[in-house]
Amino acid sequence: MNFPPDPLLDQIALALVPGIGPKTQEKLLNIFGSASMVLRASSSEWRKVPGVGPKVVSGLRQAQSHEEAKAEWQRCVAAGVQLVARTDSQYPELLRQISAPPSFLYYQGALLPRDQQAIAIIGSRHATTYGLRQAERLAAGLARAGFTIISGLARGIDAAAHRGALEAGGRTIAVLGNGLGHLYPPEHGPLSKEIVQQGALLSENSFLTVPSKTTFPQRNRIISGLSLGILVVEARKRSGALITACHAVDQNREVFAVPGPIDREESEGCHQLIQDGAKLVTGVEDILAELTQWDFVSESNVETNPSQPEAGSFSKRTNEADTSRSRQSAPSRTRSKPAAPSTKTKSPPIPADASPEEKAILQAVDGEALFIDELPQKTGLSMPQLLPILSILEIKRQIKRVDGQKIVRYQA
Amino acid sequence: MNFPPDPLLDQIALALVPGIGPKTQEKLLNIFGSASMVLRASSSEWRKVPGVGPKVVSGLRQAQSHEEAKAEWQRCVAAGVQLVARTDSQYPELLRQISAPPSFLYYQGALLPRDQQAIAIIGSRHATTYGLRQAERLAAGLARAGFTIISGLARGIDAAAHRGALEAGGRTIAVLGNGLGHLYPPEHGPLSKEIVQQGALLSENSFLTVPSKTTFPQRNRIISGLSLGILVVEARKRSGALITACHAVDQNREVFAVPGPIDREESEGCHQLIQDGAKLVTGVEDILAELTQWDFVSESNVETNPSQPEAGSFSKRTNEADTSRSRQSAPSRTRSKPAAPSTKTKSPPIPADASPEEKAILQAVDGEALFIDELPQKTGLSMPQLLPILSILEIKRQIKRVDGQKIVRYQA
Repeated sequence: MNFPPDPLLDQIALALVPGIGPKTQEKLLNIFGSASMVLRASSSEWRKVPGVGPKVVSGLRQAQSHEEAKAEWQRCVAAGVQLVARTDSQYPELLRQISAPPSFLYYQGALLPRDQQAIAIIGSRHATTYGLRQAERLAAGLARAGFTIISGLARGIDAAAHRGALEAGGRTIAVLGNGLGHLYPPEHGPLSKEIVQQGALLSENSFLTVPSKTTFPQRNRIISGLSLGILVVEARKRSGALITACHAVDQNREVFAVPGPIDREESEGCHQLIQDGAKLVTGVEDILAELTQWDFVSESNVETNPSQPEAGSFSKRTNEADTSRSRQSAPSRTRSKPAAPSTKTKSPPIPADASPEEKAILQAVDGEALFIDELPQKTGLSMPQLLPILSILEIKRQIKRVDGQKIVRYQA
Repeated sequence: MNFPPDPLLDQIALALVPGIGPKTQEKLLNIFGSASMVLRASSSEWRKVPGVGPKVVSGLRQAQSHEEAKAEWQRCVAAGVQLVARTDSQYPELLRQISAPPSFLYYQGALLPRDQQAIAIIGSRHATTYGLRQAERLAAGLARAGFTIISGLARGIDAAAHRGALEAGGRTIAVLGNGLGHLYPPEHGPLSKEIVQQGALLSENSFLTVPSKTTFPQRNRIISGLSLGILVVEARKRSGALITACHAVDQNREVFAVPGPIDREESEGCHQLIQDGAKLVTGVEDILAELTQWDFVSESNVETNPSQPEAGSFSKRTNEADTSRSRQSAPSRTRSKPAAPSTKTKSPPIPADASPEEKAILQAVDGEALFIDELPQKTGLSMPQLLPILSILEIKRQIKRVDGQKIVRYQA
């Protein structure tokens, strides 16, 4: 058996110590610097940490042997479960940015770079036919638009969201409130097998953690943490989905909600979210519009940068503090003079996995800024067909808007 | 037959001239000053007004005789229809404030001072059972809270709103797009008779005006103009209700909308309104909360006015420019020192038509500022029972909030 490098074994060992919850673990890591440093400390040093009693000290001493950590590793290998640490480049980028992100994650399936273009779809376990249908429809639409659908594998809205993504041939990640050694709810065996094929089952809990009331709220911060925004489809008042919405707000993610009839308690939570500022969603376009709503901001006093052809910087209209790294990488220092529509520039090759429509658009824009209304004629696509694809290409950072009505490709 | 005074006859005569629409009428009034001055002018003066041709000149000349105006007056008297001119004190106060308010109104029934506490409930003629039920329920609730329900007597949501108000024993006003000499739609005969008993049928159109496509959009500005806010219950995209919503925004009135299932086109217009900033409404409380949401604004640099006991001025949170006179009459210049909770002041007598709960509250607050949380103990009412009644008393200007959490009565 090949065991992982010591730093990861130390992290696993630390997480497995009985009596160390996420808060105590965070405290220990803050004080000692890393899991390895925690385990290298002495009993007297441990005892000085608030919340650490004799039981935890004895557990930490046992953890130094890596015995439990190695047993955990063997369990994971046998079950096809992989681990990724926060220090790995493969660790989900958006999740890394939240406060107190999990030190490492257990997962079954695959975590891909494209999964950072993710949206969570969550909601009530006791959903109506209406809610289930909308969750499935919106998940399918967003999956087709290139989004990975994050949810919690619960009965009701969660399962419908995963199914919608799967049926559209898209990607979906289920974040569990228990260890990957358990299946909960038990009837979701076939669903979770499909999710592993087109995404991942993921958990911060050790392999054998049983589902409990304390692990699920904790899990919700990961659902929002993995996502650019969360979409709530049916939630009662005081429900778990509203807790996830609070996490999303704390993490500076967008919150979307689907309205429904005002005489059904299943939609009460969604209506409350909308009254509190969540975006009302009637279709995929509402989400694409919001997540790709860039405004042209003229910046005449910024340093000029001749390698950037566009005239100004882009800032998202709604988010004051935008935590998405993918969006933060948008150029913020650019030339102050607008680019002429005919400026020829060198664009990168068109991605091999682009759809035929995406390719048509990228070819039309190749090397020059183009007015959006010139696109129908150049691509043979109608404006209603074009707009969602433009949004997707914007999210994929294949194109960007300049001067509001023009689009350009990024330079090679 | 007793005819009205000449100035009103002049107004009727001018409005009856064929070929003079609301715009030309407004132009003539702006140029000459009043209907009487218009009719006293000469043909050559009339001809100088853009839009006035030989036909209108001949009509104006005939109007000078008051022949048609007197015939109109006789028709109205015979049908029990009354007229109220913009210059009359009885003219609806909120309507007077819109741009180009009607010079006079025809009505059947009664227009009362309390009708200025009005909300419009409007929506699709092709409504669903869900929409009809909500329109009726919300109209009944708002009528019970003391609001007069304004609507357009149309099939669907309008009729349900009128019925809800009537069944709750409240007041309701139907603003017609035709003259009061016609009944449209024809099946609303019994409904309009009931409305006359508990409110009014109202129109700016001359008695015999037939319903037409041009009069209805024009009418919508009166629906919003009479109201503190409008509530849209089911509306398709590009529907008349959305036009009324635009008028409401122009007139600085609140816009409320009821959400519904996102897969039904009957709710599409409402969802669009909410996305554009309308308040999502699930119950009467949402509207009461919005229309009574006063913030305490400390004003230390304003002129002191010892006759006002409260400490600061109240400004509505949401409306930057508040056009409601009833609300504008809230004291804006007040003392800069907060009132002590125990300051005894002289309150006006408790209104005879106050409900038992309202009386209990007014007695509890009599003469002193009171913390809201003292009220349950003083009145025997629970907080959920108290809050809507407090909102109503606030709208009725029987109480006002000071320091956010205290209420006082107005002084005698």
